[in-house]
Amino acid sequence: MPLPISQIRAVVGSDHLLTEPEELHCYSFDASKMSSAPEAVAFPADASQVSALVKLANSHRFAVYPRGSGSGMVGACLPRGGLVIAMNRLNRIVEIDTDNMTATVEPGVVTGNFQKEAAKLGLLYPPDPASLPFSTMGGNIAMCAGGPRAVKYGVTRDYVLGLEVVLPTAEIIRTGVRTMKGVVGYDLTRLMTGSEGTLGIFTRIIVRLIPAPESVRTLTAVFPKIDDAAVAVSEILKNRIIPSTMELLDQATIGAVENYLHMGLPVDAEAIILIEVDGPEILLDSQVEKIELVCRRCGAARTEAARSAAERDRLWRARRSISPALSRIKSGKMNEDVTVPRSRIPALIRAIRGLAEKHDLVIVCFGHAGDGNIHTNIMLDRKIEDERKRAAMAVEELFSIVLDLGGTISGEHGIGIAKSPFIEQEVGAAGLDAMRRIKEALDPLNIMNPGKMFVPDRSFLEGSFA
Amino acid sequence: MPLPISQIRAVVGSDHLLTEPEELHCYSFDASKMSSAPEAVAFPADASQVSALVKLANSHRFAVYPRGSGSGMVGACLPRGGLVIAMNRLNRIVEIDTDNMTATVEPGVVTGNFQKEAAKLGLLYPPDPASLPFSTMGGNIAMCAGGPRAVKYGVTRDYVLGLEVVLPTAEIIRTGVRTMKGVVGYDLTRLMTGSEGTLGIFTRIIVRLIPAPESVRTLTAVFPKIDDAAVAVSEILKNRIIPSTMELLDQATIGAVENYLHMGLPVDAEAIILIEVDGPEILLDSQVEKIELVCRRCGAARTEAARSAAERDRLWRARRSISPALSRIKSGKMNEDVTVPRSRIPALIRAIRGLAEKHDLVIVCFGHAGDGNIHTNIMLDRKIEDERKRAAMAVEELFSIVLDLGGTISGEHGIGIAKSPFIEQEVGAAGLDAMRRIKEALDPLNIMNPGKMFVPDRSFLEGSFA
Repeated sequence: MPLPISQIRAVVGSDHLLTEPEELHCYSFDASKMSSAPEAVAFPADASQVSALVKLANSHRFAVYPRGSGSGMVGACLPRGGLVIAMNRLNRIVEIDTDNMTATVEPGVVTGNFQKEAAKLGLLYPPDPASLPFSTMGGNIAMCAGGPRAVKYGVTRDYVLGLEVVLPTAEIIRTGVRTMKGVVGYDLTRLMTGSEGTLGIFTRIIVRLIPAPESVRTLTAVFPKIDDAAVAVSEILKNRIIPSTMELLDQATIGAVENYLHMGLPVDAEAIILIEVDGPEILLDSQVEKIELVCRRCGAARTEAARSAAERDRLWRARRSISPALSRIKSGKMNEDVTVPRSRIPALIRAIRGLAEKHDLVIVCFGHAGDGNIHTNIMLDRKIEDERKRAAMAVEELFSIVLDLGGTISGEHGIGIAKSPFIEQEVGAAGLDAMRRIKEALDPLNIMNPGKMFVPDRSFLEGSFA
Repeated sequence: MPLPISQIRAVVGSDHLLTEPEELHCYSFDASKMSSAPEAVAFPADASQVSALVKLANSHRFAVYPRGSGSGMVGACLPRGGLVIAMNRLNRIVEIDTDNMTATVEPGVVTGNFQKEAAKLGLLYPPDPASLPFSTMGGNIAMCAGGPRAVKYGVTRDYVLGLEVVLPTAEIIRTGVRTMKGVVGYDLTRLMTGSEGTLGIFTRIIVRLIPAPESVRTLTAVFPKIDDAAVAVSEILKNRIIPSTMELLDQATIGAVENYLHMGLPVDAEAIILIEVDGPEILLDSQVEKIELVCRRCGAARTEAARSAAERDRLWRARRSISPALSRIKSGKMNEDVTVPRSRIPALIRAIRGLAEKHDLVIVCFGHAGDGNIHTNIMLDRKIEDERKRAAMAVEELFSIVLDLGGTISGEHGIGIAKSPFIEQEVGAAGLDAMRRIKEALDPLNIMNPGKMFVPDRSFLEGSFA
């Protein structure tokens, strides 16, 4: 059934509706690089317009696809026809309340901009997905975004206090509280967080903030053996030091970056860890000393602490150069965000080395060692069908390995379309059925971001999405 | 319909089933002091027995009431006939994993015992409801228990990583992960947390732990004006110090405790705050100094820091004596756990003074100033009908005031029966309807802890529960 364009136009106004193919194209993809166009894109101004659009969707049975800035990794926001509801106009920071350390924002606010505004007031909004310069608060909450700081500060769900949500049946509800505590009814706030746009469209968001840390220190440690690096990560935490970041680069990553930068990285080392601690200035020097000591005791060949901003930048340079370095190896990659208990990182990396050899692939691992979230990049040229097939096989085997190690197939990217064939393997048939029943209870006509999460779709894996 | 006792006995064995009235009596009440007997109490040994009991409940259409140690404050576990499923036999700490700082426990483990075992390994499980010497992990998660440490460490939901749950339809599912990150499907773990036994029975619980703090310091500050005390609480946090506890005693509480202890408390002060900081030893003295300075700048008449364990005990004595002191004022009380943004605490306390005067009641306020969770104790003799009525009116007005101040009617006790008449006032008709639809989707025959949360029941308020 075609969209009721005139009725949609009556809700948002003709200046806020796109229907031309070349305009629609811009709203047809996300960072997964899959692409599929909507029939129209509407830019509502407020919750009541969102609700009116969702009402139309129910009465005319068309699908709506809420969208932030389209920076997701798994195709969770991709339309297949239907109406994209782009939340970009709801982009106000409504309030930053310094007394209560909370903020109220609209979903289209760019997370990085919000962090900057909070920082001006001495406050920190900790979630820091790599996309934060362009991803939005609404999108971050829909996907429960993570980031390197999770080991110390947790993830998005740990900061969302309350939401205003347009339900799939068009009612506008308010969930949660403005306080740390609140136990009135089911926790709809956290049910909505990470629901990937399938249970509602956020129109207002309340988050908690924390005092910004006074100072930060950065150091690196080079480990000939990756097992020793993993032990060091646990030992640092056992010494009551919780770094804000512990980024691991495996040997394949070190090699790739060195080929790109020629900065003298130790290509024979199995791992480099980049560590940051933050907090009261008075604590940090002794923490850095302690971390260096622990690392060396655990087998680090060398450690290096930055003594200036320039040195800090140099230490970060290798980590920041991973993406461009990888793009020189192959034109494409499958970036999996598998996560295991941190003590199982060496077992995971060994298994991945085995997969690379077995399937004749380049697989590069780096990521957040403190929380076990290892970004596993299977390099490939998507035009070579055989390579795509081998990569797909490696991904399937990787997920089985991760689950056997007590981990999860997605620490921070989510399911969307890309991982939909594998969700049941992790949550089980009965668990998936419980989720489906919740979806049906709240979205009886299945108009809200349909075809995601619960519908196993191998098109991404097979490179055939359209 | 009578319970199918022989079939229930076949599941748990005759040694693990109670049916005699005098035995049933012990499972007919909780800390709300309401009471209502079940027809039987079964003590399953494991998840498969729980599932078998729930299957019977579905096929024979009887109600099941999961129960921990019955320490809840709102009647959430109270049976009305039917079968109590007492989880006491599932009481093993399965694993404390020091490398990954997680633990796996069964629901019948007493929270305080678990904390002690974790402490032996240098780890902390932070949630600390007052009931922790006897309440269970399963009950704490069902109610999303809080406690004084929430201002720094958060509440139960912030530590639950994963659950094994017997659904109301008898399937056994596993939710969540063993890691900080995990975004696969809907967040059933947090949906279950705080669901008050209406969505499933936990049979296994995975929580995260943190390194135990090295040291702790305790101090008190006496404020002639309660507004100044509230400003001081915010100012301490703005100085990047997050105390682990900030307990407020209002003037009525100070008077009650002084009448009981005669320890020379300043009865003309509007507030005393008891503050604890914990963390690295090297930080604490300067934090205590800073807090004393901030308090005095904000109008504290005096501050006192404990220099020994004995002094620390003395400072805690007034706080710990509140309960016995109150029991000397009146035989009964209604203990409301309302929570407001912390900057609104003075407005709340002033409004409560007004309610006390208007309804000729003694109302005593104390609680967790850092997170705005103010325990409001309306003292009464339940035998005096008129006093009960006035107390009920004050409670209703209190809830309206709290919601007007941007707060919640329950920070940590939950809804159960006691607050069921008021849930809609906070979450709205559409929000409550969304919760009801989730309940119906997961429990189509309404056999799991029915009659709670969604069924407005004024019997507690009116003292007529049976």
